Amino acid sequence: MTLDMVDIIRTKRDGGELDGTAIDWALDAYTRGQVGEEQMAALAMAIFLRGMNRREIADWTGAMIRSGRTMDWSELGKPTTDKHSTGGVGDKITLPLGPLVASFGVAVPQLSGRGLGHTGGTLDKLESIPGWYAELSPARMREILRDTGAVVAAAGEDLAPADRKLYALRDVTGTVDSIPLIASSIMSKKIAEGTQALVLDVKVGTGAFMTDLDSARELARTMVDLGTDAGVRTRALLTDMSTPLGRTIGNALEVRESVEVLAGGGPADVIELTCVLAREMLALAGMHDVDVEEALADGRAMDTWRDMIRAQDGDPDAPLPTAVHTEDVTAVRDGHLRGLDALALGVGSWRLGAGRARKEDPVQAAAGVEIHVLPGERVVRGQKLLTLHTDTPERFGRARAVIETGVTIGDEPPAPRTLIHDRIG
Amino acid sequence: MTLDMVDIIRTKRDGGELDGTAIDWALDAYTRGQVGEEQMAALAMAIFLRGMNRREIADWTGAMIRSGRTMDWSELGKPTTDKHSTGGVGDKITLPLGPLVASFGVAVPQLSGRGLGHTGGTLDKLESIPGWYAELSPARMREILRDTGAVVAAAGEDLAPADRKLYALRDVTGTVDSIPLIASSIMSKKIAEGTQALVLDVKVGTGAFMTDLDSARELARTMVDLGTDAGVRTRALLTDMSTPLGRTIGNALEVRESVEVLAGGGPADVIELTCVLAREMLALAGMHDVDVEEALADGRAMDTWRDMIRAQDGDPDAPLPTAVHTEDVTAVRDGHLRGLDALALGVGSWRLGAGRARKEDPVQAAAGVEIHVLPGERVVRGQKLLTLHTDTPERFGRARAVIETGVTIGDEPPAPRTLIHDRIG
Repeated sequence: MTLDMVDIIRTKRDGGELDGTAIDWALDAYTRGQVGEEQMAALAMAIFLRGMNRREIADWTGAMIRSGRTMDWSELGKPTTDKHSTGGVGDKITLPLGPLVASFGVAVPQLSGRGLGHTGGTLDKLESIPGWYAELSPARMREILRDTGAVVAAAGEDLAPADRKLYALRDVTGTVDSIPLIASSIMSKKIAEGTQALVLDVKVGTGAFMTDLDSARELARTMVDLGTDAGVRTRALLTDMSTPLGRTIGNALEVRESVEVLAGGGPADVIELTCVLAREMLALAGMHDVDVEEALADGRAMDTWRDMIRAQDGDPDAPLPTAVHTEDVTAVRDGHLRGLDALALGVGSWRLGAGRARKEDPVQAAAGVEIHVLPGERVVRGQKLLTLHTDTPERFGRARAVIETGVTIGDEPPAPRTLIHDRIG
Repeated sequence: MTLDMVDIIRTKRDGGELDGTAIDWALDAYTRGQVGEEQMAALAMAIFLRGMNRREIADWTGAMIRSGRTMDWSELGKPTTDKHSTGGVGDKITLPLGPLVASFGVAVPQLSGRGLGHTGGTLDKLESIPGWYAELSPARMREILRDTGAVVAAAGEDLAPADRKLYALRDVTGTVDSIPLIASSIMSKKIAEGTQALVLDVKVGTGAFMTDLDSARELARTMVDLGTDAGVRTRALLTDMSTPLGRTIGNALEVRESVEVLAGGGPADVIELTCVLAREMLALAGMHDVDVEEALADGRAMDTWRDMIRAQDGDPDAPLPTAVHTEDVTAVRDGHLRGLDALALGVGSWRLGAGRARKEDPVQAAAGVEIHVLPGERVVRGQKLLTLHTDTPERFGRARAVIETGVTIGDEPPAPRTLIHDRIG
């Protein structure tokens, strides 16, 4: 059937509803190059400004899934469950979480991406481990899921290719921050991944995509509905991203901290969020009242981590890369550390080399920010608060300029942090 | 200076105002291919849905003018005045109007285009005259304006090239019917043309771009403001386009009717609109209380027409092409002819071959519709109402199907037609 893209654009432009046939046709023709980038850009802007209802978003997501291959783990013989974070600064939770959940005999078939902008990508972090490799065939992914249960693979080109193309277009046309388009982009990949259950970690705060609780709640609700409608048991937590997670930002620095958590140590917020998410994932997989703290303490999660890293050609015992240059940020006065702004520290870490501005750019494995003092603690003038790491010292100036705007010292301690705001689904 | 197109798109998307620097940069970068079609498509949709204020529209129009060459007739030694119609069915008014106004010693430096869709283009009409040629150099145009005063030349590729590129993009992205974009497109070309005065004939009704009086008034007001702000004395008339103008639709058929008007005859509505517009154009050129009817009656306008046609290599005495095939549309019952719908007859004439669907298509010089009975007249069953003309008789079926939907016969005569609804500026 041939439909007319101009009619479809006009319908949405004028506030109308797109039927499933029109959505299927538009995304299929776009993926095959028969609908031009300029036409999809106009439709994306119309969707941005006019919105889509629940049925339209489900059809849009379904069409993106059908543009490529889907995966199916039903023959594995164990339940599957996964987690997705909308992206935050210092958010290394996936690293300890996957092995922790898998240590209970559940499979976590995680497909992941590389970072763009000020939030890091899970693949970038794991690639700082010598030898570790993300490009797995579906057959190899299945073997690892069967034997180890935890895997982190790069999403292949054939997984939701319509989303891949559309994401690049949205990036240059000012149509990124649209809840229907964000939700369908995330969920098309997660549903195509074939997981039976999914916990969404929707970040809220300065360092997150959603800076206010209402938008985050709407995004979470939209994604939970999409997952549920597609037969995936889906739940969302709304968690704080006004302050970085843990004491490290940057690829190898975050791996180091994740290993500390797997060894039974690490920062309190990283442990808490890892355990809360693990309990949700296991509950959705049918396992209630499990003692996830115990699995961190007794080394079971660490064993699964080591198996997972080795299964992807990494050496869990190899020393991690360290930066050639470091510089400290110190307290400018006595007082209480009131805030470490997630956006400022995220952008600073990015400028130090931990992130990329373009898809093609390399990242520095060792670059990033180490946090010595957490909000709420007392500081004295000249005390070391942060250490900046990079292999390219010419980056210190611009990184420090933004990071220093994110460090606030005052007379009074800040209000205590609420790590988990809400739970949906 | 380098600005960021994504920032510009986001500003308009969020309902903000674009400053002149941003508008200049975006249109210049777009014309040079440094801003992609997909980015301009997103901006056009954001403008469609968010609008632009008077200052933004003026800056947008100015940037389109500056993307190319502008013309200047100040050394001609006579005043310049022009007319632009937003396009209607059977709208041949430019043909008698230019020579009529020029016969009073005023120059009418008209640049025109070819038709697309159901309304005809002035160049297509004049090109049905054997030998007539529209592609004139600026120097040749100046000679004709000096010697004859009336000229109709094809707008060159270098006149507002940003508009040319943007118009093609709007056509495929559902962003045509936006008053800021329509007004800036029309006025950028008319201001670049270098006329000192301009009368806009804004059509209202089924056969026009604007089908309701409020939108037409807003478009007219926007264009009058744009012209005035750019130093062009500008006025607009809102005129009826629910019924075709005159008794002919189609290229050679309309030339024939125009020559009848220039010879002192022709249909009442064509004569009235020609004379009203001529008086407005002459008044803006400083000539008040002129007897334009007399110039039609005594042959002065006809002499200028013949000079103008000859100056562009046309033969005013050559027989016009006639169609190979004709078919009649007859009355299906006795009664009063209540309506001849402009859109139905325009689309029918287009289907007979008088118009083009794509820019590259040829048009048939002789195709079109001849009207024998006007709304208000009594008809008897079987009486000939219309004659359809085409060189390709396989077109009769689809043309007749739409034309017959536009012919209404009833017991009572229709309300009398209001030809001129309003005057603005």
